[in-house]
Amino acid sequence: MTSKRNVYLDTQPIETARQILMDRFKDRVTDVETIDVTAAQGRVLASPAIAKLSSPNFHAAAMDGMAVDAKQTFGASDDAPKVLVPDETGFWVNTGHALPPGTNAVIMIEHINIIDETSVEIEAPVFPWQHVRKMGEDIVATKLLFPRGHQINAYAMGALLSGGVFQVKVYKKPRILIIPTGSELVQWHETSLDQMVPGQVIESNSTVLKALCRDNGAVADRHPMLKDDLETITTAVDQAVKGEYDMVCIIGGSSAGSEDFARPVMASLGRVMVHGVTMMPGKPVLMGDISGKPVFGIPGYPVSAIVAFEQFVGPLLRFMQKLAPVEDRFEPVALARKIASKLGQDEFLRVKIGSVDGRLIASQLPRGSGSITTLTEADGIIQIPKDVEGISETETPTARLLKPLSAIENTLVITGSHDNTLDLLADQMRRDHDGINISSSHVGSMGGLMAIRNNATPGRGSISRPRRRFL
Amino acid sequence: MTSKRNVYLDTQPIETARQILMDRFKDRVTDVETIDVTAAQGRVLASPAIAKLSSPNFHAAAMDGMAVDAKQTFGASDDAPKVLVPDETGFWVNTGHALPPGTNAVIMIEHINIIDETSVEIEAPVFPWQHVRKMGEDIVATKLLFPRGHQINAYAMGALLSGGVFQVKVYKKPRILIIPTGSELVQWHETSLDQMVPGQVIESNSTVLKALCRDNGAVADRHPMLKDDLETITTAVDQAVKGEYDMVCIIGGSSAGSEDFARPVMASLGRVMVHGVTMMPGKPVLMGDISGKPVFGIPGYPVSAIVAFEQFVGPLLRFMQKLAPVEDRFEPVALARKIASKLGQDEFLRVKIGSVDGRLIASQLPRGSGSITTLTEADGIIQIPKDVEGISETETPTARLLKPLSAIENTLVITGSHDNTLDLLADQMRRDHDGINISSSHVGSMGGLMAIRNNATPGRGSISRPRRRFL
Repeated sequence: MTSKRNVYLDTQPIETARQILMDRFKDRVTDVETIDVTAAQGRVLASPAIAKLSSPNFHAAAMDGMAVDAKQTFGASDDAPKVLVPDETGFWVNTGHALPPGTNAVIMIEHINIIDETSVEIEAPVFPWQHVRKMGEDIVATKLLFPRGHQINAYAMGALLSGGVFQVKVYKKPRILIIPTGSELVQWHETSLDQMVPGQVIESNSTVLKALCRDNGAVADRHPMLKDDLETITTAVDQAVKGEYDMVCIIGGSSAGSEDFARPVMASLGRVMVHGVTMMPGKPVLMGDISGKPVFGIPGYPVSAIVAFEQFVGPLLRFMQKLAPVEDRFEPVALARKIASKLGQDEFLRVKIGSVDGRLIASQLPRGSGSITTLTEADGIIQIPKDVEGISETETPTARLLKPLSAIENTLVITGSHDNTLDLLADQMRRDHDGINISSSHVGSMGGLMAIRNNATPGRGSISRPRRRFL
Repeated sequence: MTSKRNVYLDTQPIETARQILMDRFKDRVTDVETIDVTAAQGRVLASPAIAKLSSPNFHAAAMDGMAVDAKQTFGASDDAPKVLVPDETGFWVNTGHALPPGTNAVIMIEHINIIDETSVEIEAPVFPWQHVRKMGEDIVATKLLFPRGHQINAYAMGALLSGGVFQVKVYKKPRILIIPTGSELVQWHETSLDQMVPGQVIESNSTVLKALCRDNGAVADRHPMLKDDLETITTAVDQAVKGEYDMVCIIGGSSAGSEDFARPVMASLGRVMVHGVTMMPGKPVLMGDISGKPVFGIPGYPVSAIVAFEQFVGPLLRFMQKLAPVEDRFEPVALARKIASKLGQDEFLRVKIGSVDGRLIASQLPRGSGSITTLTEADGIIQIPKDVEGISETETPTARLLKPLSAIENTLVITGSHDNTLDLLADQMRRDHDGINISSSHVGSMGGLMAIRNNATPGRGSISRPRRRFL
């Protein structure tokens, strides 16, 4: 083993890295395909959808009753009822039926006195078009239903079919190949836990990234795991880029160590645009251009991998198919303790959030980029900008929520020493009091006392009152 | 055709109808199945997930460099460097490697002077566990990873795999059969638009409901369309309930007309629990219990069908698999004009929403429950409670947003006469200025002038300044 090292040549702030990506790939929108409307949920229109059929496509009864020419009813009153003859001057209709020719109104069944099979009586007139859904009331043929760029949801599928549009042109889902690399990795389905030896790690990043791709409308394939070997990684990336894939993510080896091959692979096949972003976690991210296709080197630490994906890969995947950016929910939070942060890098700080006396209180989770549980336990992420050295208790930074606000508000916050019985209790609560969560922060006894002093956790007798959820 | 009519026997307020549903079906949680974690995105844990493996499962180098027993480095300084012998007193490691036996710290590569193949020099000591990720730093085997009821997202999949949990017990996705009924219906894939005759309607509700089921984690099948015929509908429902389905939705015929068969079907096979809910649209909804399984009669008007689904079917589907309720976004809105509403029924009023001078202004869309476009054009829904007769311009009701707030804020609001060129412009804007929308309300010239007077639309020269979106 040698001590040879590459260097980060192109470390960039987040905004600059994004701009470089966008400038380079602004034309890489995916191709257009024509698909059935019934298969188009979630897809984005690549051309405007114009109605081909009016809806309704005829004048339709809006009530159950008798269709008539309104003129026939004029003058009818209690004193002078009018008689109508079924199938001659009046026609039984149910809601939705086409008005028979010559009719233009519907008398509600409740207002009709049936005399016998051949005559009925009415005691009030109807006006023309009363209780009628006129042709085109909902949709007029030739009308623009949706402009290009519109994302098709369940409602839109109904409008398209009703408007006689059965196929639509949409952007293809981007296809992405995820290549996990690292000689230390083992595959979960080939692993017996008893036989793992020190140094082996279960490969999990490709599963996480595939799921995140799905969340962003893309179709991800996983390449079989590769050892840290320049040649095999180069071959795999080369084939993927020459093939059907719109994007490639190499996981692992994106840093500047002696066995980090993502950069040399990228440099040999194409061009490295960014190596290193001033953010934590996720600094050793690599962005390149191979034959005009985006190729990313994703750091191997799980939190770094996710941050790199969410900052760059996900937004680019959405852009490629014209999906609107994810609408995150942000809320101001108070801090349980002040937070220090390094100048010169944006930090994505994972926090637990509890609702205490109507305020949202955030407490910091461990910062390690290798700890996936700092993300799964987090209720939110505070992004501390690179020109900020820290946040004091008197500030109220904004947190991106990772859980619905109602879930945070329905959480019982417990701060103090770790006690395994709290884990058992958390699970029991889910069984017996569905929708109520327990969140315990393990900060030690002193930390718990400090939290009470700072009003960052409810003191004795004032725990939050979680709300019951419906159904 | 006869004038025979059924009656609504059991019209209930929304809350009561929900309570009846919940009381009856609170035990109908779906069965549990064991699946691979890699296939578990979005699913809900039916039993707690306990880590089987620590992560890391060994003491791991957190930096590239040399692993040593920290004691060996004590006393090293500029003046008195210490010499280490590779493979004897120090061991080259890369980030992530297991520490060799007997070592407990890592010296960063940057702090090592290489003398030759057999000796290196250091000028500062390291302390025990410096630059080491200790075994269990992220996950300790036996620890509770997630309690039952936890929904598995991408992050959680990573934590589960890292913790040696490769399969999980989750609730099955509910299976639902959707049966479109109505003699007036035609299937889109069997329809030639030229050959449609008055009275025929393209069946679209089953597609909309299937998509909504998917949004709620359920798997929906569509039964071939059925005519309004008591016997065939009865047979279809009977078979579905006796088969694998957890729920059945009959679309159409849920009202009390002479050809409305959903209620008689339900009454003959089981029990009708609710017929009619005091809401608009969606009043003629039908809820029944056949052999302990929920069966719904869904009104055939498209907006009624969607409201009935969203108020009752969707929440029950989520409950059955322990999925948390949808977290809707609500925002206070000002009204462009006062709104009247009938006492005695909750109304779901579709509104367009524009951001004018920093306020959200809502204007009412047509109320017809047959017009699906009132939903596709809506930016939000205001629920007017049944004990409220209307809302004045001075009130600020709360609207459930149907679109991301950013999309509403990036929309250019145009109020006035309808002009087809606005439709063309809306489409061009999407092509040339991605992320910016045009929304035109067609209320006539006078309506436009009134909107300006009420500050409900920007006057000349003060149109909103939509923001550009990233990437």
